[in-house]
Amino acid sequence: MGNHENQPLLPSKEQPSSRTWPSQQQGFAWSLMAFQTLCLLCFAWKFDLANPGNTNTNTNAETDTDPARLRGYYTMYMDVHVMIFVGFGFLMTFLRKYSMSAVSLNFIVAVMSLQWGIIVVTLVHQFGDGEFSTKIIDVPTLINGDFAAGAVLISFGALLGKITPTQLVWMTFLEIIFYAINEFVLTEYLEVVDAGGSMVIHAFGAFFGLALTIKLGVPSETEQIHNTSQYNSDVFAMIGTLFLWIYWPSFCAAMVPAAGFQQERAVVATVLSISASCASAFAATKVMSHAKKFDMVHVQNATLAGGVAIGTSCNLGVSPVAAITIGLFAGFASVFGYCFVSPFLERSMRMSDTCGILNLHGMPGVVGGIAAALITLVVSDEYYGEGLTDVYTARAYRSAGEQSFFQFVAIVLTVAFASLSGSAVGSFLMSPRFRQQKMKFEDEEWFHVPDELHA
Amino acid sequence: MGNHENQPLLPSKEQPSSRTWPSQQQGFAWSLMAFQTLCLLCFAWKFDLANPGNTNTNTNAETDTDPARLRGYYTMYMDVHVMIFVGFGFLMTFLRKYSMSAVSLNFIVAVMSLQWGIIVVTLVHQFGDGEFSTKIIDVPTLINGDFAAGAVLISFGALLGKITPTQLVWMTFLEIIFYAINEFVLTEYLEVVDAGGSMVIHAFGAFFGLALTIKLGVPSETEQIHNTSQYNSDVFAMIGTLFLWIYWPSFCAAMVPAAGFQQERAVVATVLSISASCASAFAATKVMSHAKKFDMVHVQNATLAGGVAIGTSCNLGVSPVAAITIGLFAGFASVFGYCFVSPFLERSMRMSDTCGILNLHGMPGVVGGIAAALITLVVSDEYYGEGLTDVYTARAYRSAGEQSFFQFVAIVLTVAFASLSGSAVGSFLMSPRFRQQKMKFEDEEWFHVPDELHA
Amino acid sequence: MGNHENQPLLPSKEQPSSRTWPSQQQGFAWSLMAFQTLCLLCFAWKFDLANPGNTNTNTNAETDTDPARLRGYYTMYMDVHVMIFVGFGFLMTFLRKYSMSAVSLNFIVAVMSLQWGIIVVTLVHQFGDGEFSTKIIDVPTLINGDFAAGAVLISFGALLGKITPTQLVWMTFLEIIFYAINEFVLTEYLEVVDAGGSMVIHAFGAFFGLALTIKLGVPSETEQIHNTSQYNSDVFAMIGTLFLWIYWPSFCAAMVPAAGFQQERAVVATVLSISASCASAFAATKVMSHAKKFDMVHVQNATLAGGVAIGTSCNLGVSPVAAITIGLFAGFASVFGYCFVSPFLERSMRMSDTCGILNLHGMPGVVGGIAAALITLVVSDEYYGEGLTDVYTARAYRSAGEQSFFQFVAIVLTVAFASLSGSAVGSFLMSPRFRQQKMKFEDEEWFHVPDELHA
Repeated sequence: MGNHENQPLLPSKEQPSSRTWPSQQQGFAWSLMAFQTLCLLCFAWKFDLANPGNTNTNTNAETDTDPARLRGYYTMYMDVHVMIFVGFGFLMTFLRKYSMSAVSLNFIVAVMSLQWGIIVVTLVHQFGDGEFSTKIIDVPTLINGDFAAGAVLISFGALLGKITPTQLVWMTFLEIIFYAINEFVLTEYLEVVDAGGSMVIHAFGAFFGLALTIKLGVPSETEQIHNTSQYNSDVFAMIGTLFLWIYWPSFCAAMVPAAGFQQERAVVATVLSISASCASAFAATKVMSHAKKFDMVHVQNATLAGGVAIGTSCNLGVSPVAAITIGLFAGFASVFGYCFVSPFLERSMRMSDTCGILNLHGMPGVVGGIAAALITLVVSDEYYGEGLTDVYTARAYRSAGEQSFFQFVAIVLTVAFASLSGSAVGSFLMSPRFRQQKMKFEDEEWFHVPDELHA
Repeated sequence: MGNHENQPLLPSKEQPSSRTWPSQQQGFAWSLMAFQTLCLLCFAWKFDLANPGNTNTNTNAETDTDPARLRGYYTMYMDVHVMIFVGFGFLMTFLRKYSMSAVSLNFIVAVMSLQWGIIVVTLVHQFGDGEFSTKIIDVPTLINGDFAAGAVLISFGALLGKITPTQLVWMTFLEIIFYAINEFVLTEYLEVVDAGGSMVIHAFGAFFGLALTIKLGVPSETEQIHNTSQYNSDVFAMIGTLFLWIYWPSFCAAMVPAAGFQQERAVVATVLSISASCASAFAATKVMSHAKKFDMVHVQNATLAGGVAIGTSCNLGVSPVAAITIGLFAGFASVFGYCFVSPFLERSMRMSDTCGILNLHGMPGVVGGIAAALITLVVSDEYYGEGLTDVYTARAYRSAGEQSFFQFVAIVLTVAFASLSGSAVGSFLMSPRFRQQKMKFEDEEWFHVPDELHA
Repeated sequence: MGNHENQPLLPSKEQPSSRTWPSQQQGFAWSLMAFQTLCLLCFAWKFDLANPGNTNTNTNAETDTDPARLRGYYTMYMDVHVMIFVGFGFLMTFLRKYSMSAVSLNFIVAVMSLQWGIIVVTLVHQFGDGEFSTKIIDVPTLINGDFAAGAVLISFGALLGKITPTQLVWMTFLEIIFYAINEFVLTEYLEVVDAGGSMVIHAFGAFFGLALTIKLGVPSETEQIHNTSQYNSDVFAMIGTLFLWIYWPSFCAAMVPAAGFQQERAVVATVLSISASCASAFAATKVMSHAKKFDMVHVQNATLAGGVAIGTSCNLGVSPVAAITIGLFAGFASVFGYCFVSPFLERSMRMSDTCGILNLHGMPGVVGGIAAALITLVVSDEYYGEGLTDVYTARAYRSAGEQSFFQFVAIVLTVAFASLSGSAVGSFLMSPRFRQQKMKFEDEEWFHVPDELHA
């Protein structure tokens, strides 16, 4: 394919051979600009920034409309921001010839998602609630945008190396719409809790991506030759892993109110759970992996499973033991999935999952949803005291058992809706109007790749 | 040059050939120690740390002298700190044989700049205001030190690979003085606003560095052989890009008061603008770059142009649409600059700009200054309500048109003063008292470079 | 050893030759799981998360039991978290064939340490105070866990590349116990101050690790062939250096109360000291290192010595000049140690110190302890005003001279206790029940190492 030939020293002097897909090249730029123009129009239509004229400044300091309201959210917002751009971005650099694409496409997908997420999540809620005021973009709104980006980037993980930039633009556009509908149904119709997004973000993003990747199919053995890491790409990926691991408590606690120690509990429970999953993943990789050595794939991914799995229950009546147990189980199960489930599904279901999102997000997300339903069932109302309805709004008129039932329904519905919508979007992206990725798991097709140094 | 010879395994056993410039080697250490001693003496003379004896603790919690005053600034200070050391440091690692120098020289230049910046900015303001009390170093003072470092590191970007460590020490010493004078003139004489530093930091640093690099001249074609990236250095540079991109809202909002939603607006407007510039840069690089592929130079740099361009107007009466439009324009213009303007200026003006600071800081900084002048002109006073003079102090006795005029004057003055002072410093650094860099774009001249592994 | 042979492309198809130490492999997993189970049992026994039933919410907002108590600590906790996982983790990636092990083993050791640290520090204090209530894990408790991890990771630095994962589990288990006893004796019996942990964390961790590494012995010259860096591993290590450098003020100030400007002073003094050590390290490496070039070992490590050395005195009556002087001295002394002391000790005492923790943590920690004792002696009580006992609790019934004496005793005691306990743990780890590391400074023995790309 010519990509290994000796190229001129300066990256600006590329070979003209890559000019052979002009329409596709313009396809990306036009799709992206159409997308960005749509965002611009929506922001012009329904959104504004805070100013004394549109936002009351004479309110109580404890409310969300206070001038100091920035401070309560900003720290955790920045932490989530690091997770989305550096965390996800570098976690995906592990492929030996696709690091540039991984970190760059993660970048643009996140930027598209956070804008479109702000817009669509707002519009879906306004449409559902029948209330159409101008939305003031504040920091919680930005956090919701980053959460939407999280779901799309999880899906991207399954498709890494197999999807064109143009397809990614369209996937982002469509997935966010389904994401916002699912999020609205869970929070407003089913009135379930999901502070850390085990269901809304992780399970949705994972099953959407997995259904989509089934449509894309499994690359041939020749195409998979670069579906592996090299030394430096494995170390780069650890940057992503560690920032995700470190800031996960902020992801879970960012939107949790401080009242009733909910936010503090979300932080501490997440630290305990994700620590436990790190420990069980290290033990499991040593026992389960080939040659009984540590496998960097597990170190990079399964160590985070406890963060996914504690998401829904982080601010509920979770004890240290419960948090650690959830984390231990998620870490073990994630390594087990990487060693046995993913290879099995690739053979049996033609499901190619580049980053193993089934094991890091899908299955731990479902575990997290179920764990929260059980905790909802067994923890007594005395635990929360007067703060019960701060935690579960719907407990004002539901019993614990009813709330638990709705939590179960939510996880089933999310998996089903994500799978169906992901499959539909997959069919759309496989339609002839899209060119498919030619050189799998290689930057070369879309990026100027510098020559290596032979000095 | 001997740098490619097979060297002994342990880096401690270097060849004696590099001992041939002893005076220069001592030049760096002595220059740096003289500089640090000067800082020590200045700190002894005029500065102190807060304690109950020199700082009143019985004041209102809302004022700057409150014991809890740390909290309002600390988060954003740390974010800015990451941008200066990791952001700028890694952004400059893109050169294939100069990554060590880039990140290390960025480190020492930043450390010198933040100390000297605290000193000189304080002294210039005290001299200008005729008031000479002991300065208590608090967190806003530290942020001002980091802002000064930002300007110097921007200038360094144009000179990367072409300037010796000793020259860098002297450049830092001199540039900060001109920086502080310009900052004082803009904020105290012209009384203009520039919260995010589009003019004071970005335009000043860029045009100072560009004028200086014209004095240094363009390296020969042979010398430019290493003025290019390699795979891992391009991925390393993305660490810098992403941390700059993520924390840019903190850079813009760090010194903005919370009153009247200014600080919240600065955060949200910056997120929107820098998102838009990321989108337009990705579209533009795909259309404008050679072979219609993504160019990592653009992904690393032009994606940030919206942060530079929104700086002056981030806390003004900026709407979501204005913020996005500014970002879109800056991203496009930056890629255009990398593709067409910089090569043209290198040929026509002998201006060699290693990192392309004209396109990332210079031109977007000017755009940002002009955008703010226009916003100042067109946004009605009703927008700000009673907070008008919180935003623009000088609007107490100026009309909107007058304020807009002064904003225009500020950007013109900054570009002129930066170019003149940069040119003067360039002449000084080219004088015979300084040895010039011999091996351009290579660590080898100043750093122990480990042997590559051939195992 | 077979590790350089051409292996199959996919890392999952490893050679069976590494199956020859099955008991050891299970040794790690079983040791780790026993450890984690012990943590689980301890958390079940003595710990809980905050909820309205176990934590009073009706207290004053200024106390530690307020619902908003999270905010005062969370930002600095996250910064410390980054230092422990990214800072220490990447600082140790500098070895050319041990980067994977360094960052991964740092990860699991930190995760074990923070849990076990929370448990043992709490239990030792409860045992010492004769008070055995259920401990609510809040953010300050988590910070104490990270501090304990800091001490263990410092010790690990001396042992890097020479110790098996199983030995690390046991070292973590034992070291934390000695760490907690020393911390208790210093803070509760000697009643000394040590906000930034110069003694409790840095000196303890360093002398524990150094005594332990003497027991391990010095690897042979052949074994040391990979005890060196390569280009990319040196750049990776700078990620660790810079994040440690940036967030060091948070490490020092995290547990300092805001009252009396102590916390602000801790932040500013740390910035000044660590800046000064960066400057003196750069000057010193240029003068002292071979061939008068910058040595990345010094840039990566000695630049941080000012942070270690300011630790104990950061919140005391320290002036800008004192902070800078402490930093300047620490930076010079650290480079001197790397150039002359460590090689001497390796020859004379058979002390092999992979990361040079003597120079980065041991000696600057002792300097920091002594500096604080001197500052305690010379700063007048008027400086602190009514806040004197907020800073030094024991000054309620001690003179400045007495407090200074106890500060001196604390540093002597810490060095002695750390050396003795480290030596004892070293003897235990060298006993026949532990297999020793075979391939020094290589990932290969424990990790799947991907093939390098020859394309």
